[in-house]
This record gives sequence, structure tokens and C-alpha cells, in this order.
Amino acid sequence: MKIGRQDQRSSAISTSNQDTILVRGHDLARELIGTIGFTDHIWLLITGALPSTAQRRVLDGTLVAIAEHGLVPSVQASRMTLAAAPEALQGAVAAILGCGSVVLGSAEAAGRFLAEISAAVAGGVSIEAAATRVVGEYRAAKRAIPGYGHPLHKGADPRASRLLQLGVETGTSGRHAEIAQAVEKLLPALIGRPLGLNVSGAIPAVLLDAGYPLLALKGVPILARTASLVAHLLEEQQRPIGFVMSHAASQAIDYDGDAPADFVPSTDA
Amino acid sequence: MKIGRQDQRSSAISTSNQDTILVRGHDLARELIGTIGFTDHIWLLITGALPSTAQRRVLDGTLVAIAEHGLVPSVQASRMTLAAAPEALQGAVAAILGCGSVVLGSAEAAGRFLAEISAAVAGGVSIEAAATRVVGEYRAAKRAIPGYGHPLHKGADPRASRLLQLGVETGTSGRHAEIAQAVEKLLPALIGRPLGLNVSGAIPAVLLDAGYPLLALKGVPILARTASLVAHLLEEQQRPIGFVMSHAASQAIDYDGDAPADFVPSTDA
Amino acid sequence: MKIGRQDQRSSAISTSNQDTILVRGHDLARELIGTIGFTDHIWLLITGALPSTAQRRVLDGTLVAIAEHGLVPSVQASRMTLAAAPEALQGAVAAILGCGSVVLGSAEAAGRFLAEISAAVAGGVSIEAAATRVVGEYRAAKRAIPGYGHPLHKGADPRASRLLQLGVETGTSGRHAEIAQAVEKLLPALIGRPLGLNVSGAIPAVLLDAGYPLLALKGVPILARTASLVAHLLEEQQRPIGFVMSHAASQAIDYDGDAPADFVPSTDA
Amino acid sequence: MKIGRQDQRSSAISTSNQDTILVRGHDLARELIGTIGFTDHIWLLITGALPSTAQRRVLDGTLVAIAEHGLVPSVQASRMTLAAAPEALQGAVAAILGCGSVVLGSAEAAGRFLAEISAAVAGGVSIEAAATRVVGEYRAAKRAIPGYGHPLHKGADPRASRLLQLGVETGTSGRHAEIAQAVEKLLPALIGRPLGLNVSGAIPAVLLDAGYPLLALKGVPILARTASLVAHLLEEQQRPIGFVMSHAASQAIDYDGDAPADFVPSTDA
Repeated sequence: MKIGRQDQRSSAISTSNQDTILVRGHDLARELIGTIGFTDHIWLLITGALPSTAQRRVLDGTLVAIAEHGLVPSVQASRMTLAAAPEALQGAVAAILGCGSVVLGSAEAAGRFLAEISAAVAGGVSIEAAATRVVGEYRAAKRAIPGYGHPLHKGADPRASRLLQLGVETGTSGRHAEIAQAVEKLLPALIGRPLGLNVSGAIPAVLLDAGYPLLALKGVPILARTASLVAHLLEEQQRPIGFVMSHAASQAIDYDGDAPADFVPSTDA
Repeated sequence: MKIGRQDQRSSAISTSNQDTILVRGHDLARELIGTIGFTDHIWLLITGALPSTAQRRVLDGTLVAIAEHGLVPSVQASRMTLAAAPEALQGAVAAILGCGSVVLGSAEAAGRFLAEISAAVAGGVSIEAAATRVVGEYRAAKRAIPGYGHPLHKGADPRASRLLQLGVETGTSGRHAEIAQAVEKLLPALIGRPLGLNVSGAIPAVLLDAGYPLLALKGVPILARTASLVAHLLEEQQRPIGFVMSHAASQAIDYDGDAPADFVPSTDA
Repeated sequence: MKIGRQDQRSSAISTSNQDTILVRGHDLARELIGTIGFTDHIWLLITGALPSTAQRRVLDGTLVAIAEHGLVPSVQASRMTLAAAPEALQGAVAAILGCGSVVLGSAEAAGRFLAEISAAVAGGVSIEAAATRVVGEYRAAKRAIPGYGHPLHKGADPRASRLLQLGVETGTSGRHAEIAQAVEKLLPALIGRPLGLNVSGAIPAVLLDAGYPLLALKGVPILARTASLVAHLLEEQQRPIGFVMSHAASQAIDYDGDAPADFVPSTDA
Repeated sequence: MKIGRQDQRSSAISTSNQDTILVRGHDLARELIGTIGFTDHIWLLITGALPSTAQRRVLDGTLVAIAEHGLVPSVQASRMTLAAAPEALQGAVAAILGCGSVVLGSAEAAGRFLAEISAAVAGGVSIEAAATRVVGEYRAAKRAIPGYGHPLHKGADPRASRLLQLGVETGTSGRHAEIAQAVEKLLPALIGRPLGLNVSGAIPAVLLDAGYPLLALKGVPILARTASLVAHLLEEQQRPIGFVMSHAASQAIDYDGDAPADFVPSTDA
């Protein structure tokens, strides 16, 4: 059966023949390898055009900002999975990338939030009025305000501040950064407590101002955290901690289901 | 129960407090964001040290070289999966990264191959003798020689040639590149037919010479192809082709199992 | 940092010591293996209690109903991924299970839909009034009505009819099945066209009536399709079609991006 | 480009038209749903034929045996991933199935081990001689003997004993079970210490004797553990422990990388 859209039959990203690979129209071997950097290539693949120096600096900044934050749950899960299955390294890597990436929808959600407010402002409303309205809609739908608050960095998320500064340094800072900061000032009044802009809010704030497409925002944390996972998996192979973490996690949980009267659980499990 | 190694209890990659995130000892917000690029950060995360300019150029070159090659099976699978489940985008992305990465063991396998020959050469054997011996071992174990041959680029893989050139330009070219080219010359005699060095062989050839760790080689195609997947998933959301591909794939396959005499399969399925 | 809920510290599913494994309080080796079937065990794991014969028959029926439907996109993607990476079988399996399961949220979505109507009916409203209201809410939120319609089985989904019949045969049929059929009758008036109850709507209709928990509904298609994937991956290893499908899919798509004037794409790619 | 095998163009598992779905030649709705159980259906999908009662009992026994063993690393990883990303449930499930399944290659590896010895016995060698030779080959290749030993069940794995008993009860017990037990007796002499047959060794021992295909052995732990994961994910949604485990795991690991002299890590992180 034919299901879904059947009218699109083309892709514009890449093609090749025996001698040449084209990527967004550029000859990969002759024009790109050794000439542009990986960050330039990411922007090219996603948008179809090479970035300006300012755009590349901003994309670099966001990728560096969100790549690593220590033994977060997805990294713990990855290292525990690899520790339990060293013979299946490649498969573990495959699965682990999945485990890691499911937690990374925040940058896109925050991007949509900023874009909604920006659209209203473009329609003639003040930033304060637009922000108040959109925050109100999120609250009414019981949705958390994406891009604000952090369990550890309760004052200001140092990465967010630096990214906003980078937007100014590169001359790309614009409406989205303005909105992101305005919302931060309004939140105490709107939701009853202060929540600082976090890295997942700063990333779309600076990237959207730099001209990066909203629908590709999720690619930033995905790429960045993949770099982190590669590093952690290497360290796990050299200095394993997966089993230590697994054992500690087990020790923290009791069994409270049914059991025969005389059953004694393993003391070390 | 305790299983596995219990003596390692440390990680050296990252830690944080309320104000500061350290990555390999560097203050992320104050020293890294906006100062170094993503490729520098990848090298730092993986090795613990920032790369030299030459090292960064080589890593950039390998990432750019292997990121994109059109509608390869893993990209097709990704776009078909997303087309069938647009409402589960984040989950599709998670799974898709897995599907894509399982095909990327070649660079590491080729790295091990080159490293084996290099170790023998370090022991005093000539490159030709070492290569002949190791190729012979692979053949006896019925293992394909990793890093050579390509179904499309039958002459020379243009990406491989450019990468070797980049190794020379950056002054990092050394034994592994020498071995990679020597093996290419020897293969017709050793295995009976010519096979050109491909991109998966050139990547470790230049990266190992540049000082990149062998165990982290798989991270290069994983990161690079993740960038490609992000671009393809964006294009799929804007100009879907997943269903067209799925339909074409279905039309190419018959059902040849049991069926009641009067059963007529759907003509369009 | 502590994040999230910290007050739960127990699990009731399983524990063990050197001689005994308890699953929901039962001695696995002495009471379960060889005594109960896998379907009984699924119900026991999920709910904590063994199923009645009627409950097991209904769960069996739903699992059998949704396991297999030929070369659907997720199966195509799986077989193409495996074909491209036979040496990474275990990793491919891991990733493939992910790819396959992302498309399986329908049974749970339909379960929530039926449960919403059932809750209203429990509050004293007629089925027709409750269904009309909930369908109206979904329409206003631009949400498709989950559990109805199928691109191939446009008349009646034969699996749905049989499942409803099984609910009657086992004496478990109740409100949810009643609601599911009432909605089917009302849809032409409410949304302007007929949509038959499909298997993803019939599954929660019969399982919720049998006492199966709503939050575990997704487990049914996940388990069932896993069985299908295992069968398809075995067939792929014995009679591969992954490359044929990949080739057909490629042939169906053009490249319409930029290219140098003299570039001729590979004719067979 | 065409890559790989191009001559197979058929699948024998399932086809359909508007009114009927065929699975291995059987009419799904009219002959299978409500008539056969899920375990029968698994055997049918994988082998193309319905199982005898004995075969179904053995498959049931193996699935029940290996489904659940408490908070093993893959389950911990799953629950921690879900706890960190409750809004991405479906994606978490997708990724989690991957994480869980990479650790499940033991049954197939043990199956191959038993099959190698069985092939030698079929060639006229005694079980003792064949087992001694194959164990010797594994030892020389530094491969662990798959199917023997367990970190917790050091005496006898209660699941393994019960499965062997089930093979006798169902009248299916044959050469593979004989070999499995013979190897267990020989191991102290061959490898210097006793290792009991574990559940991953008993599963192929009984399934291969029952006629189940070797290449589909991995499907047993994959299906079985999927049932366990569904149960654990439901419990995680109702009584979350993911964050408690994540916190305990973090507390067990120090940071021993570089840091500025005055840096004080978060005490609760």
C-alpha cells in the first residue's frame, strides 16, 4: 500500500559518481576536506550554505557549551551498559547514542518558545506583553517553561551568560537573545519564583539570532553529547567505573515485593 | 552481587559546582566557550589535552571526509523510520542514531590493522615484510582487509587521496600513512586484485600519525554521520521522501510463502 | 546534585539469592519455569499477579494480532540496516529494536482515548454524549482520533473484528469495547467520513476490559513486533533482501541540489 | 551503486490484501488470533511452522527462565534514562530496548559452542573427545566458554537445572542437553575450576534439541528481557527509583582530573 506523501522524490544534500562526491553542491574532496572545519560542514549540511565567521563562532560556542556535564544519567547509563557488555562494543555504542539523545529535546523546545514570542513581537506587540501571553499559555497547559532553571546552577548558568556574551561579541545578537533575557526578568512575577536562563535556553537564543534553522536545533545537543559519550566510552574502556556505579545503584534499592517467609535476599546484590 | 572490576572509582573528564563546570580541568564557561571550536573540544574531551593547529586540521579533515555520502542504507532507514513516525520524532532520532552508527566500525578496524603492521615495523621488520605477514594472517582468518576497496569509487577514493595530502600539508604524516600506501601497492600481489585505500583506511592513517588515540577512532564516523543524519532528518521534515523510498522498496520484493489458492495479494503494497 | 524524586527506594518485581530467584514473589525455577507460559509471565511481570485463563487468552490474542504485517517501514529499515552491517549483528539488533518500536504508540494513545470516554460515562453521561465531547476535543486540538482508520484495510480491519469477538468469547467484553464500537458508528457524523476501528484501537478495547493496565499498553506492540523483527532478521540472514530494497529506494529518488555544470551522477546509485 | 547480494527478491513471512493478512500462509484473523498463543506465534514466525505441544512448552520455559533477574545493569540504565526523560517516554523505550539487548548474545554463543561439539560427535567422535577439543580451541583463542558460570549462582543455576528437567519431561531432550551436561563435568579438568551450566547455556541446550533454529536463539533473551523492561518501565512511572540510583552511582565516583587549586566540587553531585 502507498502510505503518506508520495509527491516528493528528491533530495538536495549529496550525490556522487565514481570520481566525485558532491555535498550541497561542493566537491567534497577538492573543495571541503582540509579547507573547511567540521563546524562549517555541520552548518553546510544542515542549511545548504557555508556559515559566516560569526555564525560559525556561535555554532562552535553552543556545541562546546552543551557537550559535557559529567556523569549525568545518560552517561551513567552508557557506561553501565558498556561495562556489562564489552564484547558488544559497537552495539553498545549504537544503543547508547540512543539512550543519550532522548534527553535532549530542551534546546528545540526553548527555541519554539522564543520563536512564539518573537512572532508575536513581529506582529507589533511589546516583548513584555508577548512574553506574558505566551508564558501564560504554557502555564495554562501545565507546561514547564523550557530553557529556564537548573538543579545545580541555581544562580546563573555560567554557560548561558557566556553564550549571550558571545552573541554580542560576534555581532549576531538580536531579538531572540533580547526576548530570552526579558523573559528571565519577568518570570518571578509570572510564575512566582526566579528561574535563570539555562544553557538549553541560551542555545536557541543565540543560534536563532545567527540564522540557524529552528527545526535543526535538536542537532546541537545531539552532536555535542555524542562527543561526550565517545570520550566517556573511551575512559570506560581504559578505567572502568560502570560496575562500581551499577553496584552502588543496586545497594540503594530494596526489594519490597512478595517473598516466602524464609527467604533471605543476597546481602551483596 | 558485585560483578566485574571494582577497583576504579574515578573519572577525569568533568566535574562541576554551582558556579563552574570543569572539562578536563578547563573552566568551560570562562576558558572554552567562544574561545575554542567544537573540533578542539572533541580532541580535548577524548585525549585530555587541546590539539595543536595541525592536529585540529587533521581531525577536521577526517570528520568532513566521512560525514556525508548521500542516501546510504542507514540514512534511508532513518528517513523511512521518521516518515512512519513523525509524532515520535525524538524517539526516532534516538533510534536512528543507533541504526546509523552500527555500520561504522571500519575506521577502527583499519586502525587496528595499520597499528599491527606498525608494531611489527617498530620491532625491526621492513614495512613490506610486516604488511605481507599481517595481510596473510587476515586472509588465513578469512577476514577482509579493512580500509581498502569501495563499491563505487573503484579507482581511487577521492577522499582518501585528499586526506593523505592533508597529512603531508600539516606536517603530521608519518608511519601509518606510509604503511597505508605501502599496503595498497602490495595488495594486488597478496590478494590477487587491486583495492584502493578508502576513506575508512585513510582516516586512521592520518589520525594515528597525528597522535589521536586508536580506541577513539570509532568516534570520528559516529560524530560525522550524526551531523549527516541531523541534516537528512531536517530535509525529511521539510521535503519527505521516506514513504516514496518505502514504497519503492516494497514493490521490489515478492511474497513467496504459503498462501490459499484463491489469495490475491494487494497490487499496491 | 540530587535531581528529581528521592523518596522511592524500592522495587517489587524481582530479587534473588544464590539459590533462588523470586519474580513477583514466585520462585522462578520451582514454580514458574515449565509451569506457566510466556504470556502468563508477561501478565505476571507487568501486573504482579497471574492472569485468569480469560485474561491470558485476550493478551495472547492481542499479541498475535499485531505482531506481523509484512515489510512495513520499520521492518524494511531493520533489514536494510542489517544487510549493510552483517558483522555488527548484535548492535544492529539493538538499534533495530529501537527503530521498530518508535512507531508503536498507537495502542496506548487509543487506550487513553477510550479511557477518557469511559471516565465520562462513569460520571453519568451517555456513551454517545461522552464520545461526541471527547472526539470534539481531539478535533479542536487537531489531533487524529487514535485507533481508527487504516491505509490498507479500508473496510473493516479483520484483526479488530476478531479481537472484539474474542472479548465476547472470553466473557471479558465490557465498557471499553462498547465505547470503541459506539465511536466507530458516530465518526461519520462527527468527522465527516467513516473510519473503521483498527487493530491499535481494538487492542486497548479488549485489554482494558480484561483488566490490563493502561500504562503498559505500549508493551503489547513492542513485544509483538519484537517477535516479528527476530523472524525477519533470521530471514535476512538466510535470504537477504536488504540490499535489493536499498537499491530500489535509491533509484526512486533524484538529486536536485546544486552541482557543477559538467557533473554526471552515477547512473547506478 | 548496487552493493551486496542482488539475487534474492522474496520474503516468505507475511503478505496482505484489503481483507486478509497472511502470516506464514495462515489467515491471521480467522485462523490465528484467539486460536493460538503468542508463544506458538513466535515459533511460527521464526520457523514457518506451528510448534508441537512439547516444542511450545520448551520455548515457554526458556522465555520464562531468562526474562527477569532484578535490577541488572541494563534495567538500571533503562530506568535511569526514563527517569531523566519522562517527556520522551516513547523515545526512551526505543533506546532502552537497544541498551538492554546488547547484553544478550550469550544464548547464541552457547548455542554455537554446543553445535560445534555436536557436529564433531555426529562425525563419530565421543562426546568427551569432542568437548575436550572444542574447549581447547576456545581456550587457545582466549575465548570464555559460553554458557557456564554465574557471578551469583555459584553452585548450580536453578534455572538451568529446571530447564534440563523440562527437556526430559517434554521428551525433547537429546544430544545438546547431553553435551551441555558432559561439558560441565569436564570443565574442572579442562580449565582448572568448576563452572556450572547457566541459564544462557541451558536455553540452547533444550531449544536446539526441540528443533529451534540456532540463528534465532538470540531472539529468546531479546523477547524475554523486553517483557521485563516493559514491567520495569511501568514500575518506574508509578514508583520511580531512577534518580535514586543515579544519585547513588554518582556518589560512588570521584573526579580525579585536573582542577584549579581553589576549586571545590559540589558536595552533592
